[in-house]
Amino acid sequence: MPLKKVRSHSLIFNLSQGLADKHSRTTSLVGVRTALHTDLAMSSSAVPPPERLRTPMTVPRRHMFGPGPSNVPPRILQAGANPVIGHMHPETFEIMADIRSGVQYMFQTLNPVTLVVSGSGHAAMECGIFNAVEAGDGVLVAVNGIWGERAADMARRIDAVVHTIIAPPGGVFTNAEIEQALIKHRPALLFLTHGESSTGVLHPLDGIGQLCHKYDCLLLVDSVASVGGAPVRMDQQEIDILYTGSQKVLNAPPGTAPISFSERACRKIFKRRTKPVSFFLDLRWLSNYWGCDGKAARVYHHTGPVSAFYSLRESLAILVEEGLEHSWKKHREVAEYFHTGLERMGLKLFVEDKALRLPTVTTIVVPDGYDWKEITAYVMKRHNLEISGGLGPSAGMVLRVGLMGCNSSISSADMVLEALKDALAHCHKSKV
Amino acid sequence: MPLKKVRSHSLIFNLSQGLADKHSRTTSLVGVRTALHTDLAMSSSAVPPPERLRTPMTVPRRHMFGPGPSNVPPRILQAGANPVIGHMHPETFEIMADIRSGVQYMFQTLNPVTLVVSGSGHAAMECGIFNAVEAGDGVLVAVNGIWGERAADMARRIDAVVHTIIAPPGGVFTNAEIEQALIKHRPALLFLTHGESSTGVLHPLDGIGQLCHKYDCLLLVDSVASVGGAPVRMDQQEIDILYTGSQKVLNAPPGTAPISFSERACRKIFKRRTKPVSFFLDLRWLSNYWGCDGKAARVYHHTGPVSAFYSLRESLAILVEEGLEHSWKKHREVAEYFHTGLERMGLKLFVEDKALRLPTVTTIVVPDGYDWKEITAYVMKRHNLEISGGLGPSAGMVLRVGLMGCNSSISSADMVLEALKDALAHCHKSKV
Repeated sequence: MPLKKVRSHSLIFNLSQGLADKHSRTTSLVGVRTALHTDLAMSSSAVPPPERLRTPMTVPRRHMFGPGPSNVPPRILQAGANPVIGHMHPETFEIMADIRSGVQYMFQTLNPVTLVVSGSGHAAMECGIFNAVEAGDGVLVAVNGIWGERAADMARRIDAVVHTIIAPPGGVFTNAEIEQALIKHRPALLFLTHGESSTGVLHPLDGIGQLCHKYDCLLLVDSVASVGGAPVRMDQQEIDILYTGSQKVLNAPPGTAPISFSERACRKIFKRRTKPVSFFLDLRWLSNYWGCDGKAARVYHHTGPVSAFYSLRESLAILVEEGLEHSWKKHREVAEYFHTGLERMGLKLFVEDKALRLPTVTTIVVPDGYDWKEITAYVMKRHNLEISGGLGPSAGMVLRVGLMGCNSSISSADMVLEALKDALAHCHKSKV
Repeated sequence: MPLKKVRSHSLIFNLSQGLADKHSRTTSLVGVRTALHTDLAMSSSAVPPPERLRTPMTVPRRHMFGPGPSNVPPRILQAGANPVIGHMHPETFEIMADIRSGVQYMFQTLNPVTLVVSGSGHAAMECGIFNAVEAGDGVLVAVNGIWGERAADMARRIDAVVHTIIAPPGGVFTNAEIEQALIKHRPALLFLTHGESSTGVLHPLDGIGQLCHKYDCLLLVDSVASVGGAPVRMDQQEIDILYTGSQKVLNAPPGTAPISFSERACRKIFKRRTKPVSFFLDLRWLSNYWGCDGKAARVYHHTGPVSAFYSLRESLAILVEEGLEHSWKKHREVAEYFHTGLERMGLKLFVEDKALRLPTVTTIVVPDGYDWKEITAYVMKRHNLEISGGLGPSAGMVLRVGLMGCNSSISSADMVLEALKDALAHCHKSKV
């Protein structure tokens, strides 16, 4: 088909589209012209262009008070809309260096092997496990929610020998329990979730790294839902691998996941007998791409998501402006205010021990007689506000509210309290 | 540290920063105040906030005429800056459905299992291999550039039995050569690159799917650099797994990778004896998240990069507006114009057979006596224009120019021709 012909028919179509927008999509004129256009354009193609892509996309504005993604401030969204340049341009390497220093600050680590995985928190979880674990290695997974379950699944997929210790949803492990399991199984790696967003638990970290090292085991910590909003000191706490996601406290769009590896972790990883199963997540490649390996030349590995790096850099710049300790304190104070408000309304928190409550994601026991789905649907419909139900082991048991980063404020907490009050007054309550 | 104190010191710092910006960062006043701020903020933290994150990010505008990422038009960048909503919100599922239909159109397929991997093209490559291949399966890799090399590496990492057929850079395989190798090795999967961007080759596809199926083998095709810019008809050509990247012809930011699986591929994948090594890329999970499996309930798998979905949807909408066949024709015509211009300047194309030249990425033999690095650096410096050197097997041998999507135009081609002419006149030429 000649170039010009397509163009002119596109023009006809666009005019018709204009008509359709102004009047009705079912006028016969529009119908005829659209059909004509489709016939011509598809003369030798089997699959026609989908009409649904001719309607502009509309995205609602919404209060994102679930366990993530959280709201992304305009400043971060606009950073992500900067022009795309090359994934190996010097300016991109500068931005990546900025990001690395921001992640070191957020994680409180001096590890040179600190970088960002081009994927979600799950990709970072796999990055940690894939690199640190070889087939046949023992892996001990502390399961007290969904993240431990998933880590165990991942380790089994690569033929690790997986042992689990299991706490009921909402529970934690004592250091004595962890030490017992370390002695019993002598694993090469312990997986632990710091911020268990499925249950609302903030797991204590002090002393666990030291215990692991006593038994020649690496400590891998998931801090997706906690870091930035609750104290984590990677170096001081002797955590060997720590990762998080962009879409929680950092308020960046989902799609990137900061991760850091201790010298001890690198020693094991860089002396592996076998290559990790994934090329995409292979730390040897990633650490070169991120300039962590001290080599002058960077070899092309994959095309880094530069737009996502822009927004991640901006979110880390905001954390630096705010100050890490201030952020920790803010999340704790807002959470306490929110928890008090919930209890005043007669609601019960799922995690009884105040010291174990995650300051970023709160789990509320589904009030007697109510259907959690009706509550979350009600507050979405009437208050344009997302809160969510349980996940994995907490499914059906809790409501989950996330107040993270810019959403960690008294006004957001008040908004949720108001919405819940309204929901309890209007949702159906069965006789208990 | 009390909340207010941090705030006031942040204020002082911001004022100092302002001074520093206006005058000099080395004035003693600024130095003292910054040090003061750092001391206070870090009273109990080991790792101070990095100063480099206090400088706003600046991203240059640049003509992206390398092999990718290509330029992202403002319309797509702005789509990506829409507010972030939930990865499981109904509006997001609608956008994902739009994307699926757009990918089906671009790939010319009716496969229900058509979706997008939350990662770069390499993640999609792994998604195809990880799902379709079990340990011990035979994999035949047609290597005529870097992508075959990488696919072979990936398959070996998961203990496939890998056989390769190797063509010199710039070469292709005849169907007879492929059939011979299929008979000899009886693989479960054949990997072939359609658009070999490292060498500039467009590999013929007709008949290869049928050959594979004659020998009970699946055909996996990498079309990262070609689809949208050169004809691919997945169903008609009986391709079983096809993937691409967002940052080439689609002109979306890097970070998402459309992929589609035939019914034949799904039959093998969903009857596997073992789980794929990756949970993140497990097709059973992904096809549920993307609504491809016909199940009403979608289970939380990973947090999809919703912002990247917005921009990808916009890029597919533009492809629909333009028309696929028009896009194929445009890329061919612009490439022919560009190639003629290069030859008129006395430059030699790396791929001699016109029919085998990739219309999206052109490889030019490094002209005698010149250093390719000096040429690419010159056009970047003087013309703000990215072109690149070779990659993998073509390293040192070629210059690579990508004119993809919105960059596929006579004016862009002219811009590159002008820049190259200037470079040849000004770069150092040794006596040959």
